[in-house]
Amino acid sequence: MTEIIRPTLVVDKDICMQNIERMAQKAKDYQLRFRPHFKTHQSAEIGNWFRIYGVEAITVSSVQMAEYFAKNGWDDITIAFPLNILEIDIINRLAANIKLNVLVENKEAAAVLAKKATYKIGVFLKIDTGSNRTGIEPSKTDAINTILELLSKNKKVIFKGFLTHAGHTYSARSTNEIFSRHFDSLLKFRTLKQKYQSNFPNLEISIGDTPSCSICTNFMGVDEIRPGNFVFYDLMQQNLGVCSFEEIAVRMVCPVVAKHASRNEIVIYGGAIHLSQDSLLNIDGKPFFGRILINKKGEKKLLSPRNYVSRLSQEHGILKVSQKNFQHFQVGDLVEIIPVHSCLTANLARKYLTTEGEEIAMINT
Amino acid sequence: MTEIIRPTLVVDKDICMQNIERMAQKAKDYQLRFRPHFKTHQSAEIGNWFRIYGVEAITVSSVQMAEYFAKNGWDDITIAFPLNILEIDIINRLAANIKLNVLVENKEAAAVLAKKATYKIGVFLKIDTGSNRTGIEPSKTDAINTILELLSKNKKVIFKGFLTHAGHTYSARSTNEIFSRHFDSLLKFRTLKQKYQSNFPNLEISIGDTPSCSICTNFMGVDEIRPGNFVFYDLMQQNLGVCSFEEIAVRMVCPVVAKHASRNEIVIYGGAIHLSQDSLLNIDGKPFFGRILINKKGEKKLLSPRNYVSRLSQEHGILKVSQKNFQHFQVGDLVEIIPVHSCLTANLARKYLTTEGEEIAMINT
Repeated sequence: MTEIIRPTLVVDKDICMQNIERMAQKAKDYQLRFRPHFKTHQSAEIGNWFRIYGVEAITVSSVQMAEYFAKNGWDDITIAFPLNILEIDIINRLAANIKLNVLVENKEAAAVLAKKATYKIGVFLKIDTGSNRTGIEPSKTDAINTILELLSKNKKVIFKGFLTHAGHTYSARSTNEIFSRHFDSLLKFRTLKQKYQSNFPNLEISIGDTPSCSICTNFMGVDEIRPGNFVFYDLMQQNLGVCSFEEIAVRMVCPVVAKHASRNEIVIYGGAIHLSQDSLLNIDGKPFFGRILINKKGEKKLLSPRNYVSRLSQEHGILKVSQKNFQHFQVGDLVEIIPVHSCLTANLARKYLTTEGEEIAMINT
Repeated sequence: MTEIIRPTLVVDKDICMQNIERMAQKAKDYQLRFRPHFKTHQSAEIGNWFRIYGVEAITVSSVQMAEYFAKNGWDDITIAFPLNILEIDIINRLAANIKLNVLVENKEAAAVLAKKATYKIGVFLKIDTGSNRTGIEPSKTDAINTILELLSKNKKVIFKGFLTHAGHTYSARSTNEIFSRHFDSLLKFRTLKQKYQSNFPNLEISIGDTPSCSICTNFMGVDEIRPGNFVFYDLMQQNLGVCSFEEIAVRMVCPVVAKHASRNEIVIYGGAIHLSQDSLLNIDGKPFFGRILINKKGEKKLLSPRNYVSRLSQEHGILKVSQKNFQHFQVGDLVEIIPVHSCLTANLARKYLTTEGEEIAMINT
């Protein structure tokens, strides 16, 4: 840590391993396939930490990520993003070498698969259980049937089941709301499963969001979970009541470069290109971009919510701190920022440093 | 363009060259040194486009960027970020090889330079003319004198003058407000220059923001301008009245992956990790993340403000479009998104494709 001179994303491997172990154990307890989403860490080495807990199948959010993890020894990958028909040639090359699943939510993509899939490929139908981002509404069985009809024209194309990302749990205002949105998803899937199980006895139900997978205890009818963020967690999850501060495994460590006593502001080297711009609302109703940990008499201390990252520009971060805490910051100090959204912060960092001092590469580094 | 299959940042070299030429000519007209900020493009090749217009000195926002451009033949660089004392050794190595200027705004940094600078290094004092991000308030001559006193203890350290980034022009609500904030900066600098010119007859005044440098016509007392964003411009600048749509040189080209007629939404492959999360407010007062260009009967058409990027997740972008325009989008089409903040979009893209089909590398690619 004392050798850090620039904004550096530090990962606590012990916390990470605990997060992985807990989720792997939960999947076992509920007899679910654990297919973690690797878009959060995007790292072959961190991916290997999952193998210790028996993980063999993974989820990614892009064809590029699928190629990267396939090169790094993963041979059972679901690309959880609506099939981009412009990438069909690369998808075919991937499907030639690994067990590949893709997502379809419209007839255009189904038609391209029907016409162009040259190797065995699994297809999940993306269902919109309420997040209103992508997916077919579960009541629209006409649309589902049209797609299944198209897919059936190519024997290489195997319909695997229904998949959702209940992203609307991220905007829940209480854990109860997470429970109810999750349960609502399960009900929608039960209806779908009943409708299609006779024709497709092996059809699977796959769900994916970290909030539901972390705190819910009812997984009736579910075959697979695909959470990703839980590996690191972050302020957003803590704020949702999904994890504790102690379970957050990453910090952006940043040098202090200036202090402004007249406005109780500390300027750090660490801005929008390091933390990302995802924000939460602080107690004054204003957006903030991270919470602050400092070293005080040799002990790490999380400052109260009255201290936070208040503004970001490209390389600068502005910390608003209480008058009492202002004195604890000195130019040249390192402060630790807990990010609001670890997926985006990791994507910007492009590499990690572990608390033991080991550098960990990511895709493209 | 038709070979693009993934989110790709396309740069129109002609527009870029026009933007560079116009700013270079303006600097000449006002007898200002043109020291463009390269944090926007972060590319050695795009940097070379500036040489055609006589640019020999540049600005960067980090020591890493200074190292990159020094390796690529630039030997007169200002690091326009408050000196990070933890990087002093690398700064010394750089100063051994090129003409390097750094920014100081507090006595801690000045003390480190006084003690540790081993090669000739130029220092600008960062002045806060109203953006309240970093810098010394111009009235605080005691603070300025303390720093100058510290710097004078090391003969390698050359005080160059006063520098500001009037970042508060970005939040102006009209071009008149840009003019008045710029003029206010000039007045503050006039007072400072008068006070210090007798002791430092060569002291320079350096200003930097794209809004002022683009539209203002009074540069009394200014020696140097350091705009960066103008090379590409973006929606934020267009919205400020600083540039026209025709002067914006970059587009994120994204594949359409889904359509949702019930809510007039188009889903593109292109999310927060491609566009960045900087937003503007649309006519309904809601944040949006980009404007949309489509090809219609072979012609490129900018859709009205009623069509915009309304939501971003890691890889997804959601376009809200009018019912009339909905039909013009097909799965597999490429759409062009004009980014809100081109600096952050370029930082995420990590490379460019020119409209002529040439790939252009950036730092770290």
